[in-house]
Amino acid sequence: MKKESAKHVLLVGNTDTFPSIEYASKFRAPDPVVFLKSGIANYLVVPQMEFGRASRTGMPVQVFTPETLGLQGVGKGKIRKWVFYLLKRLKIKTVTVPYLFPHGIARYLEKRGINVSVATKELFPERAVKTQDELRKIRESQQAAVIAMRAAITLITDSEIDNAGCLRYRGRIITSEYVRKLIARILFEHNCMTKDTIVAWGPQAADPHENGSGILRAGETIVIDIFPRNMTHGYWGDLTRTVVKGSASSFMKRVYHAVKAAQTIALNHVKAGVNCSTVHRAVVEEFNRRGLSSSILDGKGTGFIHSTGHGVGLSIHEAPSISTAEGRLKSGNVITIEPGLYYPGIGGVRIEDTIVVTQTGWRYLVPCEKKFEV
Amino acid sequence: MKKESAKHVLLVGNTDTFPSIEYASKFRAPDPVVFLKSGIANYLVVPQMEFGRASRTGMPVQVFTPETLGLQGVGKGKIRKWVFYLLKRLKIKTVTVPYLFPHGIARYLEKRGINVSVATKELFPERAVKTQDELRKIRESQQAAVIAMRAAITLITDSEIDNAGCLRYRGRIITSEYVRKLIARILFEHNCMTKDTIVAWGPQAADPHENGSGILRAGETIVIDIFPRNMTHGYWGDLTRTVVKGSASSFMKRVYHAVKAAQTIALNHVKAGVNCSTVHRAVVEEFNRRGLSSSILDGKGTGFIHSTGHGVGLSIHEAPSISTAEGRLKSGNVITIEPGLYYPGIGGVRIEDTIVVTQTGWRYLVPCEKKFEV
Repeated sequence: MKKESAKHVLLVGNTDTFPSIEYASKFRAPDPVVFLKSGIANYLVVPQMEFGRASRTGMPVQVFTPETLGLQGVGKGKIRKWVFYLLKRLKIKTVTVPYLFPHGIARYLEKRGINVSVATKELFPERAVKTQDELRKIRESQQAAVIAMRAAITLITDSEIDNAGCLRYRGRIITSEYVRKLIARILFEHNCMTKDTIVAWGPQAADPHENGSGILRAGETIVIDIFPRNMTHGYWGDLTRTVVKGSASSFMKRVYHAVKAAQTIALNHVKAGVNCSTVHRAVVEEFNRRGLSSSILDGKGTGFIHSTGHGVGLSIHEAPSISTAEGRLKSGNVITIEPGLYYPGIGGVRIEDTIVVTQTGWRYLVPCEKKFEV
Repeated sequence: MKKESAKHVLLVGNTDTFPSIEYASKFRAPDPVVFLKSGIANYLVVPQMEFGRASRTGMPVQVFTPETLGLQGVGKGKIRKWVFYLLKRLKIKTVTVPYLFPHGIARYLEKRGINVSVATKELFPERAVKTQDELRKIRESQQAAVIAMRAAITLITDSEIDNAGCLRYRGRIITSEYVRKLIARILFEHNCMTKDTIVAWGPQAADPHENGSGILRAGETIVIDIFPRNMTHGYWGDLTRTVVKGSASSFMKRVYHAVKAAQTIALNHVKAGVNCSTVHRAVVEEFNRRGLSSSILDGKGTGFIHSTGHGVGLSIHEAPSISTAEGRLKSGNVITIEPGLYYPGIGGVRIEDTIVVTQTGWRYLVPCEKKFEV
């Protein structure tokens, strides 16, 4: 069977929504632009004000503006016209677009005789296999995450428990917000930014994406999830640890050990050629084996309620997905392995590392120790 | 003529791509979710792991998960199925979607008998008219921008010019990167983050979005554009000033005075009911009158090569657009007025303030002084 291959790949948007544009052109666009990959040729259409910047990326990309495509007057502000004029200029009648391509533009093009076909597979599969340069960049962000994590856990470790069970450091009450600020400050010093760092304790941690708030308390699980993005090159890192100040309940101890064991088992499966779903299934089976199966009570998920991991790069969540979805690991994939267990009203545990897949297994990008009771 | 009114408005994406989801539901989604506004009822479909968080926003939104919609197995991870199951559950056959709606999902729905119509106007026009609470939030970010701007300009003012024409502060060479870091640090202390702050000098400043790099030099225009986003509530601010250390060339003096005059003239036009394009045209005419018209040389734009301004809110660029596009200003709009002139090989000047439109004119959100030679 002949392999399907997209001849003319069209993307329209800013580079936060479509990082593939930045990946392929090295142009970071805060506002929407048009990107076309036609065989080995690449084209950008950018607003007049971006022409200089787009022309200096050092990549073999031909840069147009609405004006150089012949657009005049009010219409030159409409990006759907940029697309149509570009395709007309290049005599292209059929384009392949990603699933997330703007529907309004697709419909506009179709009305003008352009055949718009939605890609059924990744249009830039090369993004999932990182170059040495990309590994260095992700490692830089991951390093910042590790340093921030150590500072946060050291603060909790060095805190004392007051009579009310609250954490105090040198007399000062310690809140989620305080720890989050400490983390943000360290990431900032490492030229990274972060939004929505998670420092969630007790029942808050039962929601995997709850940011967390209020005074940290002894005996409760504290989930710390740090995902910095380098402000210069835009690559992410991702790291989660769970700690308890003082003693955890025997149930949460059991949960922690299950998550840690499941992570190890998942990691033992990781190497090039392995099915992503095999890795995910190993986690599910380990939890089941330990009597910690997932279920839904009153609409709330209990147990393992997310996937095992995701790719990390110019997007915080990108291919490959380590879940029930199909796909095989490749050498050079950068992925997270992050099993977790969540119990509404009680708490949650998640342990996450970001690793690079190799022919024979995997490597940490930056290792970070794991400790539960601190 | 009866006014077109969308009965069932459908959005699919994360809240960075579709801030209207956060606007309408108060739910901030790092990963794609489904949002449906059906008359006065609002619905969200979120992954199981987000159910708790989405249920606690305090807004009248009914929250589903793939599981509560009856999805099982591999399919429950596919967001197009979430949409289809939600519409089936609510017996909805026709939806209105925004221009940027994912084409792959639109096509999937159409194949299943759903009528997908692309909105021809803003689906959440109320977003452009800010509430008192929103004004307070934008003011908070704008205040951070003003404080950071003052610190940056004070640093340049207090610097000395060395024999090579470079700026030094207490002996230390001052670079774009250094000033950008100073700005980022201050924004961070005000709970704001920023990406791509502009500190561009000399010919760099001829590209409006060039970040800038290297040692700042006397006699060159330095464009400083600061747009912080509050990390808690997500609203933006936006502020630009242009300064020269020492003396500017007589041409750049003329350019600066033209930009400053054009901004004043534009502001004099601003009040509720005025056409946005009238404000923009006033800027173009003022530049023409002063013999500083725009043109394109070798593909590079010269003169006034962008629009006069844009709305600011949960997005840094949102409605209304102060450009050649149609539309009238409304009381409560928050907009930038930011004329600029750009000369490749020479430099650029931009002056930008963020203001709120009133019935009788406008108010600064936070005023910030303007000075050219420092």
